[in-house]
Amino acid sequence: MEVKTILLKKSVFEDNDLSAAKLRKELADKGVFLVNVMSSPGAGKTSTLVALINELSSSYRIGVMEADIDSDVDAVTVAKKTGCPSVQLHTDGMCHLDAEMTRQGLNELGDGFDLIFLENVGNLVCPAEYDTGASMDMTILSVPEGDDKPLKYPLIYSKCDLVLINKIDALHYFDFDLEKCEKNILYRNPSATIIPISARRGDGIGAVVQYFKKILDQGE
Amino acid sequence: MEVKTILLKKSVFEDNDLSAAKLRKELADKGVFLVNVMSSPGAGKTSTLVALINELSSSYRIGVMEADIDSDVDAVTVAKKTGCPSVQLHTDGMCHLDAEMTRQGLNELGDGFDLIFLENVGNLVCPAEYDTGASMDMTILSVPEGDDKPLKYPLIYSKCDLVLINKIDALHYFDFDLEKCEKNILYRNPSATIIPISARRGDGIGAVVQYFKKILDQGE
Repeated sequence: MEVKTILLKKSVFEDNDLSAAKLRKELADKGVFLVNVMSSPGAGKTSTLVALINELSSSYRIGVMEADIDSDVDAVTVAKKTGCPSVQLHTDGMCHLDAEMTRQGLNELGDGFDLIFLENVGNLVCPAEYDTGASMDMTILSVPEGDDKPLKYPLIYSKCDLVLINKIDALHYFDFDLEKCEKNILYRNPSATIIPISARRGDGIGAVVQYFKKILDQGE
Repeated sequence: MEVKTILLKKSVFEDNDLSAAKLRKELADKGVFLVNVMSSPGAGKTSTLVALINELSSSYRIGVMEADIDSDVDAVTVAKKTGCPSVQLHTDGMCHLDAEMTRQGLNELGDGFDLIFLENVGNLVCPAEYDTGASMDMTILSVPEGDDKPLKYPLIYSKCDLVLINKIDALHYFDFDLEKCEKNILYRNPSATIIPISARRGDGIGAVVQYFKKILDQGE
């Protein structure tokens, strides 16, 4: 499937926090809810989005932006498996997205969406340092990575509204303590919502769908 | 087990390539072989190092530097499971190590080593952009991350001498094509050595041990 790939230009604006606040306000005024999705490489961002979108797309107009340094495999996967408008953003080697880069992607995606997912570069460090202007931040931690990740990567867990613990279908196979992991996440952010899921098998996807419906419907 | 943790200072030198070349020369003159170990978070850097060190430590004097943004779990694990001198480096929020930060760690570790492993911050983007001054670069890609990682993160795979594909004991459980993964790695770097391993079960560790023995013994 053909999807459009955009090479993002480096931002010329110096104050990213200001650009992010401006973008967030504009999105709110237009009634668009933008979710910034972060995780390690290979934690399952794309497969989680596919599972979520297939449950949400009958109720909301959804768009997707897939950021990567190279390749368009994720945007193609999303377009093919959900039918939703999807653009691939190439970061020109950059390890994160900022608000102006996000704006470039949104301009390309166009108008008419209730909900837009922005899949950030797979990286637990730099994406957390740059406000994208999103309405909320979501992080996915996967079971094979280990339950100690929130201890090693403080910032991303401390700023996330929602943390999904993915690949719980593989819990029996890895030395991963779910309770300890939840404790480690809450140590970084006591108000985080934590939902264990298996994007592959479908566990927990219903709870995440409810989480988003609650937010989106209260805006009506 | 008590291990020393050092908070690295940000580098004041502007030309990292120059600092790295200088450090590499000094290490060669002292007969120290420094391995820069990179991967995604949770790909198994620490468990791979433990498995390797336990096979190599009877023949070589080995030291370990564990870099993380926070926590000292990795340095404690290495010290406890191998008995080797190990220091924890805290990067003060930084997403990578450069040559001067590596030098600070080496100064703390002290002299008298044949082989030193530097476990970089878990990140497939930024660590690849900064030469640490190491004698070689090694990347670990783990099966649960997916066989497409070399397509998405070009630089780290293009600059690595050795790529270990870890967690092959979980191959039956994930949608991972070993042959396709090897092809993707070689697409980025045709001269990379690729060794599939399971740090947990021990598969392939012998081949990696032979790889290092060959390099270290030719220096005698």
